[in-house]
Amino acid sequence: MQYNKLLEEIFREIKPIIGQGKVADYIPALANVDPRKFGMSISTVKGINFSTGDVDEKFSIQSISKVFTLTLAFSKLGEEIWSRVGREPSGNAFNSLIQLEYEQGIPRNPFINAGAIVITDILISLLDDPYTELLDYIRLLSGSKNIRYDEKVAQSERENGFTNAALVNFLKSHDNIKNDVEKVLDVYFHHCSITMTTNELSKSFLYLSNHGSIPNSDHRVLTKSQAKRINALMLTCGTYDEAGDFAYLVGMPGKSGVGGGIAAIIPNELSVAVWSPTLNKKGNSLAGTKALELLTTKTGLSIF
Amino acid sequence: MQYNKLLEEIFREIKPIIGQGKVADYIPALANVDPRKFGMSISTVKGINFSTGDVDEKFSIQSISKVFTLTLAFSKLGEEIWSRVGREPSGNAFNSLIQLEYEQGIPRNPFINAGAIVITDILISLLDDPYTELLDYIRLLSGSKNIRYDEKVAQSERENGFTNAALVNFLKSHDNIKNDVEKVLDVYFHHCSITMTTNELSKSFLYLSNHGSIPNSDHRVLTKSQAKRINALMLTCGTYDEAGDFAYLVGMPGKSGVGGGIAAIIPNELSVAVWSPTLNKKGNSLAGTKALELLTTKTGLSIF
Amino acid sequence: MQYNKLLEEIFREIKPIIGQGKVADYIPALANVDPRKFGMSISTVKGINFSTGDVDEKFSIQSISKVFTLTLAFSKLGEEIWSRVGREPSGNAFNSLIQLEYEQGIPRNPFINAGAIVITDILISLLDDPYTELLDYIRLLSGSKNIRYDEKVAQSERENGFTNAALVNFLKSHDNIKNDVEKVLDVYFHHCSITMTTNELSKSFLYLSNHGSIPNSDHRVLTKSQAKRINALMLTCGTYDEAGDFAYLVGMPGKSGVGGGIAAIIPNELSVAVWSPTLNKKGNSLAGTKALELLTTKTGLSIF
Amino acid sequence: MQYNKLLEEIFREIKPIIGQGKVADYIPALANVDPRKFGMSISTVKGINFSTGDVDEKFSIQSISKVFTLTLAFSKLGEEIWSRVGREPSGNAFNSLIQLEYEQGIPRNPFINAGAIVITDILISLLDDPYTELLDYIRLLSGSKNIRYDEKVAQSERENGFTNAALVNFLKSHDNIKNDVEKVLDVYFHHCSITMTTNELSKSFLYLSNHGSIPNSDHRVLTKSQAKRINALMLTCGTYDEAGDFAYLVGMPGKSGVGGGIAAIIPNELSVAVWSPTLNKKGNSLAGTKALELLTTKTGLSIF
Repeated sequence: MQYNKLLEEIFREIKPIIGQGKVADYIPALANVDPRKFGMSISTVKGINFSTGDVDEKFSIQSISKVFTLTLAFSKLGEEIWSRVGREPSGNAFNSLIQLEYEQGIPRNPFINAGAIVITDILISLLDDPYTELLDYIRLLSGSKNIRYDEKVAQSERENGFTNAALVNFLKSHDNIKNDVEKVLDVYFHHCSITMTTNELSKSFLYLSNHGSIPNSDHRVLTKSQAKRINALMLTCGTYDEAGDFAYLVGMPGKSGVGGGIAAIIPNELSVAVWSPTLNKKGNSLAGTKALELLTTKTGLSIF
Repeated sequence: MQYNKLLEEIFREIKPIIGQGKVADYIPALANVDPRKFGMSISTVKGINFSTGDVDEKFSIQSISKVFTLTLAFSKLGEEIWSRVGREPSGNAFNSLIQLEYEQGIPRNPFINAGAIVITDILISLLDDPYTELLDYIRLLSGSKNIRYDEKVAQSERENGFTNAALVNFLKSHDNIKNDVEKVLDVYFHHCSITMTTNELSKSFLYLSNHGSIPNSDHRVLTKSQAKRINALMLTCGTYDEAGDFAYLVGMPGKSGVGGGIAAIIPNELSVAVWSPTLNKKGNSLAGTKALELLTTKTGLSIF
Repeated sequence: MQYNKLLEEIFREIKPIIGQGKVADYIPALANVDPRKFGMSISTVKGINFSTGDVDEKFSIQSISKVFTLTLAFSKLGEEIWSRVGREPSGNAFNSLIQLEYEQGIPRNPFINAGAIVITDILISLLDDPYTELLDYIRLLSGSKNIRYDEKVAQSERENGFTNAALVNFLKSHDNIKNDVEKVLDVYFHHCSITMTTNELSKSFLYLSNHGSIPNSDHRVLTKSQAKRINALMLTCGTYDEAGDFAYLVGMPGKSGVGGGIAAIIPNELSVAVWSPTLNKKGNSLAGTKALELLTTKTGLSIF
Repeated sequence: MQYNKLLEEIFREIKPIIGQGKVADYIPALANVDPRKFGMSISTVKGINFSTGDVDEKFSIQSISKVFTLTLAFSKLGEEIWSRVGREPSGNAFNSLIQLEYEQGIPRNPFINAGAIVITDILISLLDDPYTELLDYIRLLSGSKNIRYDEKVAQSERENGFTNAALVNFLKSHDNIKNDVEKVLDVYFHHCSITMTTNELSKSFLYLSNHGSIPNSDHRVLTKSQAKRINALMLTCGTYDEAGDFAYLVGMPGKSGVGGGIAAIIPNELSVAVWSPTLNKKGNSLAGTKALELLTTKTGLSIF
């Protein structure tokens, strides 16, 4: 398929709505991002990369990091992680405390904040250095040495992150956090602050379209079954309380972040990353979601 | 693929857990079903049928009928139906009133009871005879003339259906029911009472694995895009508040009913129906779910 | 105390806000009431009556009838009624289904709709003729023969009462309704449709300020302890989810209705009824609440 | 009235149930209290004190301190405090986060934890030294110099207080906490750790039975109207989600704490404090509640 031509076509069609919606404004570092940015990259399992727009500019991947932390924890602990976090869509906003209270401190899934915080806690218990090892892991997945934390964002999140501080304390009150709450928050906010380009991000998701191994390498990240399972979780839980609509309109397993990025995959075929900082009401990139919808509509690609 | 051999293998492995769980007991007609029944049928898009167990015995399809009513309403009204029902997983039990109250009478999706009741109301407004026309529709899809309502079940549901009566009255109080509440309930309970065999059921789902048209016929039920969209809805919402687990473990779009049936599909490949009356805690067939998990594990088939 | 002068003073001060708020408009019979009406009557335990404004005009007492039905059921069954309804403030709107679902069909208290419907069901089981006997009971309490149902209101409620139909069906699904749902609704809507004047209403509440017996008669309605308990329930649950504010600002046990009436009492001293059809956001008479607040502020009367 | 004789009678009758229920065990300092302790003190507005049992033993007043902090804040800020906390019963457990999320960080009332934390935050902004000034205030109210914090309890609460840490962070995320979260928690936990005897506690509540001024002194704590309003709040919100039952059975405005203490009042007449460490399921002293019920039953005293 002529992905270059396709990407140009999508970019052209998407232009009128770039900038529609609202940039995340809860911390200055995100509020100040140029709302007119747009980048989109496709990486095929055969190892070819296609891209258009601002594809070499770093942006804050935010919740997309939850896929990497889950993958790392899952590859180390296996099914055991499900004793501490569920696998069901939450039906609520990403930072809600309500369900958590009804369900005694077991988050619905690893892609809402509470669930990702529990995964962070698991990683802290497992790893010698949860800061460095996650960066190295993403460097391996993306094939890029140039993956870093944005300390300014991490710091800013920490100073304003009272909802997440509420979540981690509440989880601790239900004994579902084993480490110190300040430590957990610091590691969690660092993971969220990672910056990547769409080129790096699409490459880093290839293992999920390639049954768990990095294409053109002998590195297996997950078993085939585990990779499918992460994809299933992304489909049912990857885009907050818009997962149903995303599956309906886009038809790809994917994960979004409030920085305006979305990464998604078609098994056996490709991974794709898109970035446009302005968000719709559910907190997903407005133009990014539409760009992915155009991708599946134009190609007929879809898991369904 | 040697589906005959595969089905025998699954049947053999599943035998120890057949009868585990609980038969639905809210009406006598369901409570009296033999808990040891098991049937499984596979229909390929090439038109071949494979089956094992009690595959010619009629059982109550119950909520699986929600796929047929949605398909019929969707084919007639298109995207307009989404003004009255959502497309998101509910995160609650299938008959919950809570979300409905918070969200002012718009059911989360067409596969929870409240959503299916709204779809029934839409069909009553659209069709001359909502009783006969749905039967004829399923006869067309399944290629079997022998599809009927179980009047005893419909009657029994009506006499005990106070939760559904609460739902329809609540929806009416929010002006999301246009017809008479008694009429809506009667049509709804009739749809739920339809009986089918697994052979009939697997054939009747083939249009969803075949991009919207019935294989080996020139009959198109839905557009390709619409068929994908129904599949997406089944994946995120088709198995009540167990949809996440079902996607994770089975990896197929599917729909279950409290009669113990489940129908599911792999696009371009096959549809499958399984029946085992005893249910797990979330209300899905216990052995049926496991049989489908074995199917995707053994074949490597999965949408992910 | 010079209650005549006091009532004139209150009337004068309240005039500017009469008509503020909104008349209940869910049925035409209530929507068409003149929003400028205002009446207020005080009855002392010594048997003297004072009044000002439209005090001989009948209005729909609506939920104030819940005090009479509770009193009648309580006098007949005693503490046994609490196995089917609670005694706690609901913290939610008067017609909410949410708490009912979480608490498996046991309404929080007898003054929200669900609780009063259960009390109606109890009365139907206890009484030969629940229509006539309640009227006779209120005639006895008020000393007025002229207490009747407004059939037009009862009929109109029935035709529009889908929320209450949802409640009664939901209660029935939890086995907390023993009689036919249509019968329960009809009796309940009739009780709500009773019309009274403020003069009649204030007299009919005297037994609650007089420790359970009707003053200047030898008729005991409740034991002293039971009368106190009904007063306690009115204080914590009598004005929907505004009970806290009503206790804080007014300081009297009382019960309101969407017809714009409020009846309240000071033990050993007096009962008072006020009517002004326009309601505040919580569904209580706006001017009526203010008039009662002026009453306790000006007299220093208060249970606190 | 012969309160000495009455107290002996109550003590005798209550003995069989002393020790029933469960001592609060979330921190060691409370878990180790002797479950057989019982003390009860009555102080009349005329200045006489009556008592029975372990009335000179200090216990942790815990949430009863919420009455003192509210009184202090109310006397300084007046009705302005209601912009940051409501006046309605919560209908939920004392430490629930659910309602807080639905109502955007405005706690239902000042007697649930979230509300008291907001009051603490107000005091920190108002007072030079919120630690010393509250102690001095209670010393004034009780006429006892010997009122102190239990630093061990305060420390232990802090180390285990993850639910309250969740609450304060959540309130801060809604901008309803103005000071540093750690500071707020420290002051809050200190207030909860105050120890008093039932003799001290009953005396310290006399201003609430005496219309806002300390009997036999010229010290006015609150206006008459303000004192009534605190009493109204205690009645509707003072005993967690058991306030309705407490009003129904006991009929006095009162406030309980998980240390097993309850303080309550009859306007114009008396205040009473009771202590028995074992709690019922709603978190109120089991024998203490019963003792107060006996008090009002035997004397006929009741606000209703």
